[in-house]
Amino acid sequence: MDIDATNRAVARMQALARATARPEVLADIGPFAALFRVPAGMADPVLVASADGVGTKVIVARLMDVYDTVGQDLVNHCVNDILTAGAAPLFFLDYLASNALTEDHKVALVEGVSRACRATGCALIGGETADMPDVYRPGEYDFAGFIVGVVERARIIDGRAIRPGDALLALPSTGLHTNGYTLVRHLWCLGTGEDEADARARLARYEPDLGRTLGEALLAVHRCYLEDLRPVLPRLKGIAHITGGGLVENVPRILPEGTAARFHRAAWEVPPLFRLIQRAGAIPEAEMFRTFNMGLGIVLAVAPDDLQAVRDRLPDAMLVGEVVAQGTDGQRVVLDR
Amino acid sequence: MDIDATNRAVARMQALARATARPEVLADIGPFAALFRVPAGMADPVLVASADGVGTKVIVARLMDVYDTVGQDLVNHCVNDILTAGAAPLFFLDYLASNALTEDHKVALVEGVSRACRATGCALIGGETADMPDVYRPGEYDFAGFIVGVVERARIIDGRAIRPGDALLALPSTGLHTNGYTLVRHLWCLGTGEDEADARARLARYEPDLGRTLGEALLAVHRCYLEDLRPVLPRLKGIAHITGGGLVENVPRILPEGTAARFHRAAWEVPPLFRLIQRAGAIPEAEMFRTFNMGLGIVLAVAPDDLQAVRDRLPDAMLVGEVVAQGTDGQRVVLDR
Repeated sequence: MDIDATNRAVARMQALARATARPEVLADIGPFAALFRVPAGMADPVLVASADGVGTKVIVARLMDVYDTVGQDLVNHCVNDILTAGAAPLFFLDYLASNALTEDHKVALVEGVSRACRATGCALIGGETADMPDVYRPGEYDFAGFIVGVVERARIIDGRAIRPGDALLALPSTGLHTNGYTLVRHLWCLGTGEDEADARARLARYEPDLGRTLGEALLAVHRCYLEDLRPVLPRLKGIAHITGGGLVENVPRILPEGTAARFHRAAWEVPPLFRLIQRAGAIPEAEMFRTFNMGLGIVLAVAPDDLQAVRDRLPDAMLVGEVVAQGTDGQRVVLDR
Repeated sequence: MDIDATNRAVARMQALARATARPEVLADIGPFAALFRVPAGMADPVLVASADGVGTKVIVARLMDVYDTVGQDLVNHCVNDILTAGAAPLFFLDYLASNALTEDHKVALVEGVSRACRATGCALIGGETADMPDVYRPGEYDFAGFIVGVVERARIIDGRAIRPGDALLALPSTGLHTNGYTLVRHLWCLGTGEDEADARARLARYEPDLGRTLGEALLAVHRCYLEDLRPVLPRLKGIAHITGGGLVENVPRILPEGTAARFHRAAWEVPPLFRLIQRAGAIPEAEMFRTFNMGLGIVLAVAPDDLQAVRDRLPDAMLVGEVVAQGTDGQRVVLDR
């Protein structure tokens, strides 16, 4: 191990962290931990925390030799998760473990984190980097993140007020976000033990349907919905982040007992990337909806009276369905033709 | 993947998390994130956060087929890290990613986390579990943790008041804690690609010097110093957690400019495990002190006037050295014969 190179990388990572500082960060004290003042002036502050990884999107990124966007995926995923409770981010810590990752690649990974933290007003206050060649396969790495945000207790969004008749709005995803990569990689033999030159060539191929290469489409950064939703949060009854499990598993998580979500499939066009995946794997429609976000990155439950005001502030929101009383079949999500 | 087994494991992990609940946890809301009220009645609460892994102690644990202690290592490491600032733990989240780990093993890992969280009054409020066979080597896993604690701003311990003449006390470690495992594993070919039956046999061998097997000594749980230090925190000027880099790298992190730490090597006996490692690898003394904790898990800087009161409350504390003015040689840590 080249200690000088490691020290240089640590210094660069520390500079990337400092670039995200907020007034609450107590810098230069607490060498074994990071210190952050609870924001002043809140009546009953509730901390909202989440831990996430980005799954095997890291493998696609490695095959494409792109390292500076995965950190954005990680932060944005976490920011969206706490946003579902109405929380704004306070701070973030990352954990990066790998086998034979260069110092430049490690710095690039943290660069992505720093960029997304700056964009969301989140302070990157700490992290851990570990070299573990006997745990990770050669060249591979894993990148996990931890976020803490805050919300006034009286403003927590928890879905309890959702009623039949409420509208379901959705904002578009930019692609797979951070879910479904294992399925997709096995479809096209991307980092599954086969020859990597073939995998790289496949990723570099221009796909007319996508208007870009397959690799570019797969690496599209997980969209962050914080700035979109911030002005309308008081009008949202529930927010579901569409991650692993798709609409089918994620929307029921915010629905009160006795209610279900009815989606109108004609209300939005499933983006070409999902259709390409579906054709390549001859994947049944139901499995697609259970694995991928199918173009909807986040789903919002809104009372009919608030619908117009919310849509006015969210120009790309799509009215994709509504909340209904749960039927006798017990289904929580109905996908209408 | 057996979805039923996975769901059962998730239910067991959720039960282990619920067992750690504190009044501040807002349960059953926020399905995409965990909610925790800022403790009431504090004048200027400062959050103290840390992210950690346990390094390749996970490999030794796998070879010994022990899964329920690594979570304790993880939590205790994190608790000690924030304790250095004077903080008490609030909540913890874990990240567990693996290749072909059974559901029972995953649950056992979280059991360790839950046990240590209960012991330290820390709420386990969330976590993420990922199967990533193309990233991890067969049978391997990584386990990272994230802790948030709190301290009154006026009670932050930051080392700034440390002066020459202050005493350095230390509490014993239980073993390697979570550092130096890569060196040790290469010494005895433990999970480094060689035959695993040999590695297991080596770990199972009784070592008279240790009074137990090598494996038992290597897996000893990272000691948590929270309960020891809680009653004396107001009397501590600085706390250094002795992790990777040993005394040589960790003690200077709390020392003000112009000061150094002088340790009296005769003040404590280096435990036999470290001597066994040193002999096996013919490792120079200086490298030992730069890699391992050498029997000292945490080092405390105490004013002479407070020394007796602190020692009265910490029966196993050892007076191991003192703070001195930094010499012209620029050394921050001096190890006296």
